Order: sequence, then C-alpha cells, then structure tokens
Amino acid sequence: MRALSIHAERRRRAALSIADPKSEPPLDCLMIVGHENVRYLSGFTGSNSAMLLFADGRAILYTDPRYKIQAAQQVDCKVKVAKGPIIKAVLRDFDRSMKTAIGIEKDHLTVGLLKDFTDKLPTRATVEPVSGHIEKLRLVKDEGEVALIRQSVDLNSAAFDAALKRMKPGITESDIAAEIDYRSRRLGAERPAFDTIVAAAERAALPHARPGNAKIGPGMVLIDMGAFREGYSSYMTRMVHFGKAPAKYKQAYKAVLEAQLAAIHAVKPGIRAKAVDAVTRETLTKHNLEKEFVHSTGHGLGLEIHEAPRLGRKEKTRLEAGMVITIEPGIYIEGWGGIRIEDTVLVTENGCEVLTPTSKELIEL
Amino acid sequence: MRALSIHAERRRRAALSIADPKSEPPLDCLMIVGHENVRYLSGFTGSNSAMLLFADGRAILYTDPRYKIQAAQQVDCKVKVAKGPIIKAVLRDFDRSMKTAIGIEKDHLTVGLLKDFTDKLPTRATVEPVSGHIEKLRLVKDEGEVALIRQSVDLNSAAFDAALKRMKPGITESDIAAEIDYRSRRLGAERPAFDTIVAAAERAALPHARPGNAKIGPGMVLIDMGAFREGYSSYMTRMVHFGKAPAKYKQAYKAVLEAQLAAIHAVKPGIRAKAVDAVTRETLTKHNLEKEFVHSTGHGLGLEIHEAPRLGRKEKTRLEAGMVITIEPGIYIEGWGGIRIEDTVLVTENGCEVLTPTSKELIEL
Repeated sequence: MRALSIHAERRRRAALSIADPKSEPPLDCLMIVGHENVRYLSGFTGSNSAMLLFADGRAILYTDPRYKIQAAQQVDCKVKVAKGPIIKAVLRDFDRSMKTAIGIEKDHLTVGLLKDFTDKLPTRATVEPVSGHIEKLRLVKDEGEVALIRQSVDLNSAAFDAALKRMKPGITESDIAAEIDYRSRRLGAERPAFDTIVAAAERAALPHARPGNAKIGPGMVLIDMGAFREGYSSYMTRMVHFGKAPAKYKQAYKAVLEAQLAAIHAVKPGIRAKAVDAVTRETLTKHNLEKEFVHSTGHGLGLEIHEAPRLGRKEKTRLEAGMVITIEPGIYIEGWGGIRIEDTVLVTENGCEVLTPTSKELIEL
Repeated sequence: MRALSIHAERRRRAALSIADPKSEPPLDCLMIVGHENVRYLSGFTGSNSAMLLFADGRAILYTDPRYKIQAAQQVDCKVKVAKGPIIKAVLRDFDRSMKTAIGIEKDHLTVGLLKDFTDKLPTRATVEPVSGHIEKLRLVKDEGEVALIRQSVDLNSAAFDAALKRMKPGITESDIAAEIDYRSRRLGAERPAFDTIVAAAERAALPHARPGNAKIGPGMVLIDMGAFREGYSSYMTRMVHFGKAPAKYKQAYKAVLEAQLAAIHAVKPGIRAKAVDAVTRETLTKHNLEKEFVHSTGHGLGLEIHEAPRLGRKEKTRLEAGMVITIEPGIYIEGWGGIRIEDTVLVTENGCEVLTPTSKELIEL
C-alpha cells in the first residue's frame, strides 16, 4: 500500500474531524476558504480565489483560470477551474450532490460571500458557521513543518547578523529594514513575514512602528523581523543600542530578558498558555514594569504569523509537544522607548527548544 | 474657517453617503472594518485590530493597546483603546447610544465577528449588510492620492531599471526578485505591493508564478512588480528576453502590445469598463490569441492592489477622470510561456495618462 501524501493524510484527519459525531454542530461537509487552511490541506499556494469543499471525505479545490496550471502542478485532490465567481461553481456541485448540514468557516468567510452562497442554495440544506476544524489540526506541527520553521528561523537570524554588520551611525531605520529584507530574501525567504520593524529611540515605544527615514542617533533600536520560508514563518525581536547604553536602559533590558527567560523556562507540554503569560507578568511586576507590558507573552505561528494558541491572560489551551510559539515580552514607555525580546520556540516532549540561535546579550554598537 | 483635514473631508463625504435617504437600505450608522477603508477615513495605518464606527456624522476609531500611541499620532477623530476584544468595546457604545439600522461592511466583516456583534446587540436594532459606501468614495482619487501613486509608479520603474542592469545569464528568478524588492525599498517603498513575479520560459505561462532558484537560460522572462508608497500601490509588468528572441515570441509580443495600446487608446471618461476590455479581446482575436487571455484587461488600484472597477467582460461601470487603473492584457500558453504588458494609467478629463514611464520596446539581453 502506498503511503498517503502529506496533504492526503491531512485531509484524512480533517475528514475525521468533520465527520466526528461528537462535533457540534454535526456536519455533512465543510467549505474551506481560509487561505492557509486551503494550503494546509491541498498544497495550493495561490493566494487568492480558492475554496476547498470537503464532502464524504473527498475534497475539491476550486480556483480561477489564472491558477489552472499551478493548481494542476501542486494539488493532489480534484481541481475545478471556475470561469466566473468561484462561489457559483461550488453551488453547481451542491445542485447535484445535496447535503443537509454544510459547515462554513465563520472566521474566514465574509458576510457577503455567505449571503451569495445561501441565497442560491437548495432550500433544504442548513448552513452552520463553525470554526477551528482545520486550525485545530494545525496547532501541532509535523516534522516537515518544524523543518521549514527551523529554516525560516535560521535564515532570519542570518539576515539579522548580516544587517548588524552594516549598522553604524548615520544609517536610517529604513536602510536597516531594507538590508534585512534583502538578506532574508537572498537567504531563501519568499518574503518578510510582516513589515519589518526598525524603531529607534522613543519610536521603540510603538509596538508596531514603521521604519522611518531619519538618521539613527545614539540610543536604543528595536528590530522585529520574520521570514516566510515555503509558507512557514518565524519571528524574532532583538534590541541594539547605538553608543554606550545608560543604566536605565540596561536595567530595563535585564528585566525584560529575565521575564523572557522565565517564560521560556515555564514552557512544557501540559502547562496552560495563560500560566506562561502569568510567569512573564510576575517577573515584570517584580521590576515594577507590569503596566508597560501592553500585549500578551506570545502566540503560535506556522502558516500564519499569528496562530493559536495565544499566550495571554485568559487562554486555557494546554501546550503540547510540536506546537511552535513565540515568547516575546516587551515594555513600552511613551517618550522614552521600548524593549522587546522575542524568540521562536518549539514545545518538546520534555520542555522546549529555543529555535532562535541569535544571542540575547546586550548589544552596544 | 479652518479647512477640514483630508480625512475629515472624507468622513464628511462618507457621512453624506451613509445618511443619503436614497441609499438602500437606509442606515443610521455604519461599522467599518475594511483596513483600507479605516485608513482612508482616519489616516490610521495599524494593519490589524481596528474598527471605525460612524454615527451621526461622527467617527470613533477603536484599536488595541499596541496601537495607542500610534493612533494618537495619526488620527484626528475620536480614538478608543479597547483592552479586550474590539467588538466588545464597540458594543458598549451601542448600549448608550441606541441605533435602529446599523450597517456592516459585508465584504469585510467575517460571519464570526458579525455573530459576536449581533448576539450581544440590544434587540431593537437591525443589522444591514451593505457594501461599497466607502469603496465608492475611493474610486476617484484626489490630488494627494494621485501624487502618491505617481511616486509609487516612478520608484517601481526605477527599481526595474536598476534590476535590469543586473540581469545576465546565470541569474535566477529569485535573484531578480530580491534585487527589485531591495531597490524598490531603497527608493522609498514600504514594501512590494504583492509578491514580485519573475517567471522564465514556460513558467511565464503561470500568471501568478513564484520566483524559483534555477538559473535563467535563453528565453523570455516575465516580471510583474508593484510597490506600496505611503499606502498607495502601483503595478507594472514587463517582458525581457535573454538572448535573441525567436519569431514566435516577437509576433506574440507585438500582438499583446497592440492589444495593450488599443485598450489604453480607448480609456476616457464615460466609457464603460467592459468596452475597454472588449477592445483588448478584439485585438487579440485578430491575432488568434483570444483564448490564451485568461483574465480581465485590468482593475482599479490605490490603497488596495485590486480595487473597483474591474475591466472585465461584464463590468458596466463608466470610467471617470481621477480613476487609476491597470491595463494588462496577457496570453499564457502551457509548455511555451506567457506574455503580459501592464501599465498604471490615470483617467483624465480628455482621455488618460499612462503613468508608467518604462519603455515597452521589445528587450533582448
């Protein structure tokens, strides 16, 4: 017997989840529109215009003529190329093979597309907004996925090292960001996982600052960067200090690093995500910096840069071996700046492995 | 009297559209979640986690704590920073100021978010899925928007010129794409408008090919590139031929260029989008290439890389001065390759202006 392809194996598991009599509501089929879910189950990388219909354990990928050749090359389930709106092609198949409970992905389908769908649907079918069927499968990464995330992490760190060599007084935030993106690309990334953040001095107080064109003077620089490697992402934040760092910066850096290391130390299978977040908060509270920590400790990543679980105050999910998460405490003080330290971390059988190889020693340039 | 800021002026026009008694259904307020619509009306560039609530001509921007400082810097309407889910903060305001017909953006709001909203909403309010209120305003660009699109177009072309100098046998598709993205960034782009396409030989038959790592041999190379400049995009596709081009390529190139020029010639205020598309098809039909043209002639662009109007077979929208569109016929032949030629074009009072300065002469390297 031939082994199933990785995508066929994922579809097998998805079919089990959809047909699970314990799933609420029970479904006869599921219409998948989330790009990453479509890719996960089919291998199709076309970023727009695709739907995957799952019924009776069989999958059909619908796309448009621009992706006809690409879909034929990438996809090992049935492909239909729709000439007009994809939703109409999907509906045509419902005319022939009537279903009674159609699941739709409520986190991905827009209200408008749902309306286009239900308006034309044979009347006896019910439409059930559901979530998480595929995301649940994506929580724990398989070997191939971890290998790609490792590649992404490694090239991301190598791009940081290359950019570090170019950092000197007179360089701008934009220059550094351009250098990082270029190196990352040359090292094998498809593209940055998000707009690379390079934020100097008080701009580091903006957790999602955009690089500017002013020359960087003495002071802190926050660099948050990630790369997509064959669809899989990585995340890293590092701080550098142009010139000698003052005591206040050193103290704050040490506190954030202590919180980050404590959180990493807490990561292991079975712990709840919120417990890891609590460790970060307790450490920052000790340093009187808890109020400056305005986000959560981290989040899962993979095909998306933000996936479940969220490592926040209320998240009850228990970590499992094979999950890949970020650990990224940060503090932000308006008018002064901000410090964030972030690694990509794999949950292992015994605890965790910090995938990010880049040093977290305080850097003064 | 002080002039309104550009965003306040846009909000004034949005308020008129929403309150228009002829609008169907009539609305008391509109909840805006489309990122670009939020940006258009408020100036807020935070890419996630923002909603704009429009009621009685007043706007409130809701965001999360990570964007608190940034929102205060960018936004000239009321800002509320939500600690938990943004939808809950929005709902709290509905408790106090009851509305009877709440519009939601059906093309942007997910089914799940709508459910979270309606489940908690005071019962007497009705929720109306609508579309196009803000997109309609965005169709015709104002002076500032056209200026940014010009900048985007110009730096995109300059990046192409720089990359062209590096193109020689032995270079890979990825190398060219990395070079283009880097140059574009250094020339002032925030990021590529989409994944830069560099597709050699038969891979050019994939309209949305991803750059690969094989060395490019003699033959055609399709390059499709765009840049975001302060939020505004541009689009250009050019062909280069490594080595001397064979007759079949030259013929096909000439036919596509003829179709592109004919379509550009047709662009003027008052013409329907589908009439421009028809001109492209007629020209390609003359050359027996109509079946190889698998997409539409072009589309609007601005804050999004694909905006209305679509220049397709059925689109009845009449072009107006101030619209910015692409004109991009292409042919794709499996096993052989593809040719696309694309410019960014501004509709003017008298016809149109091709913004893209790059030559369309056949290039042999």
